[in-house]
Amino acid sequence: MKSELRGQTSHKTGMAPGSLVHVGNVHAQQVRISIMDYSKDDVNELEITSIQELLPYRDSETITWVTVEGLANVSVVEEIGSMFGIHQLVLEDILNTHQRPKFEEFEDYLFIVLKGLDAGGENFSVSYEQISLLLMANMVFLFKEKKDEVFAPVQQRIRTSRGRFRSLGADFLTYSILDAIIDQNFILIDSLDEAITVIEDQLLAGDPSNAILNRIQRLKREIVGVRRYVSPIRELISEMLRSESPLIDEKTHIYLRDVSDHAIRIIESIELHRDIISGLLDIYISSVSNKMNEVMKVLTVFASIFIPLTFLTGIYGMNFEYMPELKVKWAYPTLWLAFISIPGVLLVYFKRKKWL
Amino acid sequence: MKSELRGQTSHKTGMAPGSLVHVGNVHAQQVRISIMDYSKDDVNELEITSIQELLPYRDSETITWVTVEGLANVSVVEEIGSMFGIHQLVLEDILNTHQRPKFEEFEDYLFIVLKGLDAGGENFSVSYEQISLLLMANMVFLFKEKKDEVFAPVQQRIRTSRGRFRSLGADFLTYSILDAIIDQNFILIDSLDEAITVIEDQLLAGDPSNAILNRIQRLKREIVGVRRYVSPIRELISEMLRSESPLIDEKTHIYLRDVSDHAIRIIESIELHRDIISGLLDIYISSVSNKMNEVMKVLTVFASIFIPLTFLTGIYGMNFEYMPELKVKWAYPTLWLAFISIPGVLLVYFKRKKWL
Amino acid sequence: MKSELRGQTSHKTGMAPGSLVHVGNVHAQQVRISIMDYSKDDVNELEITSIQELLPYRDSETITWVTVEGLANVSVVEEIGSMFGIHQLVLEDILNTHQRPKFEEFEDYLFIVLKGLDAGGENFSVSYEQISLLLMANMVFLFKEKKDEVFAPVQQRIRTSRGRFRSLGADFLTYSILDAIIDQNFILIDSLDEAITVIEDQLLAGDPSNAILNRIQRLKREIVGVRRYVSPIRELISEMLRSESPLIDEKTHIYLRDVSDHAIRIIESIELHRDIISGLLDIYISSVSNKMNEVMKVLTVFASIFIPLTFLTGIYGMNFEYMPELKVKWAYPTLWLAFISIPGVLLVYFKRKKWL
Amino acid sequence: MKSELRGQTSHKTGMAPGSLVHVGNVHAQQVRISIMDYSKDDVNELEITSIQELLPYRDSETITWVTVEGLANVSVVEEIGSMFGIHQLVLEDILNTHQRPKFEEFEDYLFIVLKGLDAGGENFSVSYEQISLLLMANMVFLFKEKKDEVFAPVQQRIRTSRGRFRSLGADFLTYSILDAIIDQNFILIDSLDEAITVIEDQLLAGDPSNAILNRIQRLKREIVGVRRYVSPIRELISEMLRSESPLIDEKTHIYLRDVSDHAIRIIESIELHRDIISGLLDIYISSVSNKMNEVMKVLTVFASIFIPLTFLTGIYGMNFEYMPELKVKWAYPTLWLAFISIPGVLLVYFKRKKWL
Amino acid sequence: MKSELRGQTSHKTGMAPGSLVHVGNVHAQQVRISIMDYSKDDVNELEITSIQELLPYRDSETITWVTVEGLANVSVVEEIGSMFGIHQLVLEDILNTHQRPKFEEFEDYLFIVLKGLDAGGENFSVSYEQISLLLMANMVFLFKEKKDEVFAPVQQRIRTSRGRFRSLGADFLTYSILDAIIDQNFILIDSLDEAITVIEDQLLAGDPSNAILNRIQRLKREIVGVRRYVSPIRELISEMLRSESPLIDEKTHIYLRDVSDHAIRIIESIELHRDIISGLLDIYISSVSNKMNEVMKVLTVFASIFIPLTFLTGIYGMNFEYMPELKVKWAYPTLWLAFISIPGVLLVYFKRKKWL
Repeated sequence: MKSELRGQTSHKTGMAPGSLVHVGNVHAQQVRISIMDYSKDDVNELEITSIQELLPYRDSETITWVTVEGLANVSVVEEIGSMFGIHQLVLEDILNTHQRPKFEEFEDYLFIVLKGLDAGGENFSVSYEQISLLLMANMVFLFKEKKDEVFAPVQQRIRTSRGRFRSLGADFLTYSILDAIIDQNFILIDSLDEAITVIEDQLLAGDPSNAILNRIQRLKREIVGVRRYVSPIRELISEMLRSESPLIDEKTHIYLRDVSDHAIRIIESIELHRDIISGLLDIYISSVSNKMNEVMKVLTVFASIFIPLTFLTGIYGMNFEYMPELKVKWAYPTLWLAFISIPGVLLVYFKRKKWL
Repeated sequence: MKSELRGQTSHKTGMAPGSLVHVGNVHAQQVRISIMDYSKDDVNELEITSIQELLPYRDSETITWVTVEGLANVSVVEEIGSMFGIHQLVLEDILNTHQRPKFEEFEDYLFIVLKGLDAGGENFSVSYEQISLLLMANMVFLFKEKKDEVFAPVQQRIRTSRGRFRSLGADFLTYSILDAIIDQNFILIDSLDEAITVIEDQLLAGDPSNAILNRIQRLKREIVGVRRYVSPIRELISEMLRSESPLIDEKTHIYLRDVSDHAIRIIESIELHRDIISGLLDIYISSVSNKMNEVMKVLTVFASIFIPLTFLTGIYGMNFEYMPELKVKWAYPTLWLAFISIPGVLLVYFKRKKWL
Repeated sequence: MKSELRGQTSHKTGMAPGSLVHVGNVHAQQVRISIMDYSKDDVNELEITSIQELLPYRDSETITWVTVEGLANVSVVEEIGSMFGIHQLVLEDILNTHQRPKFEEFEDYLFIVLKGLDAGGENFSVSYEQISLLLMANMVFLFKEKKDEVFAPVQQRIRTSRGRFRSLGADFLTYSILDAIIDQNFILIDSLDEAITVIEDQLLAGDPSNAILNRIQRLKREIVGVRRYVSPIRELISEMLRSESPLIDEKTHIYLRDVSDHAIRIIESIELHRDIISGLLDIYISSVSNKMNEVMKVLTVFASIFIPLTFLTGIYGMNFEYMPELKVKWAYPTLWLAFISIPGVLLVYFKRKKWL
Repeated sequence: MKSELRGQTSHKTGMAPGSLVHVGNVHAQQVRISIMDYSKDDVNELEITSIQELLPYRDSETITWVTVEGLANVSVVEEIGSMFGIHQLVLEDILNTHQRPKFEEFEDYLFIVLKGLDAGGENFSVSYEQISLLLMANMVFLFKEKKDEVFAPVQQRIRTSRGRFRSLGADFLTYSILDAIIDQNFILIDSLDEAITVIEDQLLAGDPSNAILNRIQRLKREIVGVRRYVSPIRELISEMLRSESPLIDEKTHIYLRDVSDHAIRIIESIELHRDIISGLLDIYISSVSNKMNEVMKVLTVFASIFIPLTFLTGIYGMNFEYMPELKVKWAYPTLWLAFISIPGVLLVYFKRKKWL
Repeated sequence: MKSELRGQTSHKTGMAPGSLVHVGNVHAQQVRISIMDYSKDDVNELEITSIQELLPYRDSETITWVTVEGLANVSVVEEIGSMFGIHQLVLEDILNTHQRPKFEEFEDYLFIVLKGLDAGGENFSVSYEQISLLLMANMVFLFKEKKDEVFAPVQQRIRTSRGRFRSLGADFLTYSILDAIIDQNFILIDSLDEAITVIEDQLLAGDPSNAILNRIQRLKREIVGVRRYVSPIRELISEMLRSESPLIDEKTHIYLRDVSDHAIRIIESIELHRDIISGLLDIYISSVSNKMNEVMKVLTVFASIFIPLTFLTGIYGMNFEYMPELKVKWAYPTLWLAFISIPGVLLVYFKRKKWL
């Protein structure tokens, strides 16, 4: 029952701050470093194995997007850090995958860290991937935990776009990456929506079981987790907009605001779904009560009809010597009349009370 | 069970930002573009089919109100965008009908997007229509999803008003449009009020059924949805008031504040109704408990009266050889006395406990 | 069940803004306009029928308090508006009785609108009256829906006070009027207190019925309504204090702060009572559970005692040929021993479980 | 059931503002005015009967602390007001004992009003006393409702302290008084803690009765009341710290911040206890449910065991002529086997379901 | 049941402010004072017994870390206070172990007080230790209640780090200490997580008992306590960052921000766990209801099947002279058919209702 979300202990507790250790689950054993270097006229894509190969891009005029997939190999991050003069604490944050989304401003670079979310199939068990961005004058570093194709559309745009995209700076690339990460969440919300619909249908059709309750609780918890990583994004982008760093061009602001709008819409959707789930819980609890009510009614109807009748039979089962009725010929059929009419009267009564 | 409200996924996820696609349900297949051009002395109304016909109005002194109904034809928005120099992201927002209400300020124009709400008959299933406004110096563009008569009163005022309205600028026209959209919500709230009254009456009269619970939950959810689109309007107008754009005249401020007051009243009404619905849920749950209580009382009364009596008949139904009472002549009538007096005593007891 | 509070639709929906129509219930068919004109040395009171009679007071040095009771006659408000240059929207607000309390500042006058509340007897069904104030240099206009004596104490003070009151300006008069309106709410809270005490006593004495639940819900709703109109008063007065209009003298500030204190005390009292009522709901729900518990105990005691005994009688009511006990002389009395001792044992057991 | 807390009506409602009347319960019929006049070298203590005796202290260099106990005699406050030039509304606030804690700044004096709280024995029924302070250059007036020894420790310190205390100004005296008032609340919280512990023990030991529920509700309400008067103290002291009045020396700020820390600790403690009490309510409600569960189990066990057995005896109590079993010799003992084994089986079943 | 958390009374209530008394539980009878004096090149560690031995370090250039473990001996704090010119109220705060986390700025030193938390084994009963820090130009005083090894890692770093750590100032040492204290909380949260997992497993496996309810409540309460001491840390560090004291170097800011991030993560984790525990309570309450439902079903099934059958046997147990069925040979076997078929029909019915 221990979810990914809750284990938050830094394995580093007790260690000196500033020591570089990867904290979190290892999703990709092998590190893959891929480069996309582009200018208005040209795009180059390659994979490198040694950090030293990055050196020529450092001072070139072209925009270079370096993607590091897999964080298990600490030395990669360390070398990048020393080559580009990144603060020790930033490197630590890149490696420790329990960061909250945040934006930090340094003289020569900007640091953004946030979470990529994946709904993970039918069961809506969200998996989180930490994504860190370093935005420099002509370079963007992207650190991911896993190897996947989240940014394929952005890469495709760079390859195909002639004029516009490639003539814009590294800040526009950063925006495109953020946009891709955040728009992933729309899919997540659709998936959540589906999960809720399934539960709703079960609640309406079948009976309230503990299994449904557990599923409702699990969904609730997943949403709390999602919210935790999505809601700071709004603040993150606000800080980017307030930042006066020359690394973010004035023209990019409108794009960032657009991303911010998307983030707000996602946050609101999450809140809405939280409310819906709370409503499901209410329905669940009410269903349990209604079920009990129904059970009680059946019991009451049965008992109230047959207990008086049994009493009647008890009377004429007694062995007194002087019971004149026993001799009367029509007594037995008359009693049968009572056996039929009493339930009739009671059934009408229960009907009027809407118990049947 | 999947409501219009929840499906919020941008179908564009994964696409490059800046590509114009209509996102949302298609409410009107055919686009209708109508123009209302007026000055202090004159009003002209016409429908156009080609965007090129707008050209003469661009630079004229008169105020021109262009209404575009139906968003399925993306090229219409695109052409307007390029003719009037509208930012790509604004055009996207116009076409993507999942926007939150917002206000954006540009050098040459202001962009407002919000939702028109329609209560949709007895069942209170609200339908939403996205309405976008572009306010320029002498022009107002209004983009709607559907063809309807929401703005007929405003048009009527333009036609009939001699002096006042037509001598005021495009910002006053914008205000009038906003006012018409927001005042629609008063009708919505009346409709909501009616729906609640119906449920209340059912709760008081009949018995608590799962159907009522579902209706309460559905209302609750609709209100959450309405709130989501109405509450940002307050902020939207605040931003308009704070804006220092020359496109909004100082004199129009008092009118905007009036709209803002209306919006606040609507938001408060919605909050009030949310509270009332929560109260209904409490009453519902209490009713279920009370019903159960009542059932239990009936069962208890029946069982408590007849079980002891049956025990008595059981005693004298035994076949022991030596049961002196069986021979006594008055035993049987005496027992009948007990059969009558025991229930009497118990009924008095239950009466005193207020169970009957 | 449709309360005055909820019907908030502007009957004007769809109308052009700026058209003067009275919106709300008509409380007084006939309009009464009374004037109180005073200076340090003199007080004049009269009733007028034509707005023209106000003309001489407009430019006089004395302070003039004009009270308009009844809003059904729109033309009265219209004429005052044109005589004193009041903005069209202000006139609309005066006539539309669904306003939230608010303060608006204009060059030549200040506009205040708020609600007078009346607890309305034992049942605590609050009635609301909209009161609008126009504060000018030497005049105060007061518009009310009903004819009543709420401001009699203020009038009395003007008549009797020699020096102090009459030498202070129109702003002090405004303060006195506000003070009178707000202090009415203390009576309202006392009345609410009484209504709660009645319910509390019923809850403690009798049994929990649906009627009590409905009364609790109704009170809750009334409080929500009261809060809605009282809590903005705090903000209203803050705005008056922040206002830099020369119409409010610096010396009046301390008096306004005093009114503000009263408003805060009232708001806090309302919050306190809301908490108390929520507590009542908890007690109610618990009472229902306790009642059910009690019913169940009675049933269980009866059933558990007599069902085993009946089983015993059943055994010896069987007709087997070979049942040796039936022949034993002491069998029947022995069984009676069981009939007495078994309930004894069970009663002790139930006593120990605190069911009796 | 009507608590001291709730009756908040100003008996002055309807009266002219500015008229001096004592509002509240009369705790002390007789007014006692005591003076403590001290300088670095000397302390004088005396009781006076006429306000005129205060005159010499007004302009002396020494610091004079005047304590007025009992507010029934309005003229005392009135005379002090006119002798020291206190604003009419301040005098009203001193006399009306329903004030919220607040701080007001005037040119020549500062006005502080707050509540002294007393837990009042085992039952935790808090009593409130209004304490008003007037801080002038060399004088401090303290108005109390009751005669008690709350400030004895402060007086003792003045008497015994040689250097430090007596060389500090009237603001330090004010601080000491505030400190004494606020530290009283720690005792209150201990008392509350004890009351909660008693309830907790009862809940764990005995069974959930309505009496416990009422006690929980009463505690909850008392806490709401305490919170109401304690939480504004934080703001009060913040305002004193922000004040730029020369009457509060810069050096006293650190002491006031210390008092503020105490106030925050008390407020947090109160919040904590509110949470604890809500938890008690949850436990109470759960206990009721558990109790019901237990009752139901007993009923079910009894009924499920004996009802089938009684059915068996019923079969062989029938009078059919052709019932071969009745003749079989071992039938009766065999049936006894069933009478013993059926309950055995059922008991094992119930045991496995953990009902026993 | 009275937890450490709640007893908050200052034993000093009634005492003069400024008198030094140790308030709180005595954790360490004997005071231990240890010194760690280091410069870039050298580290000295020693224990001292007299405060006088600190004198040489006061004016030396090296950085000196003085750890005082145990607060029972008031004179130690007093002497340090007078030797280094610490304000009386700060000394009091060090000795009174009921402080909220806070930061105070003085001319020559900064004062930080916060809580070290320890989860305390399986039961998750958190124990709190107050830790006070005095940061001066070249000295750091650390006051603790207990003797433990919380800061061993920091000491180790000082001993082993050649260049970096030891060349940074006293503010970096302070940061390292804060970091160590706050990172302790990650362990606490893991421990909390484990405690919750245990309860979850019990809830899913076994049945809902009062013991589980009590454990849930206790956890909830512990979390409230933890939150109380952890959440102000965020504000504390914000104040340190806003402080313009020269004692905190600009370069240390990024480290403090890092600590702040950790604190936020911990606070969010706590909130998350609070939500989870509330969810557990919901599951608990639902489980109780479900259990009751199940009990009721068993009772209803038994009663509904056997009560009608018993009635049948009652009929033929009657002693009427004229009951023709009694003579029919096949009557008895026919009845057995009914005895078998009636339960069959009912069982199918109950099955369809999903009661079995």
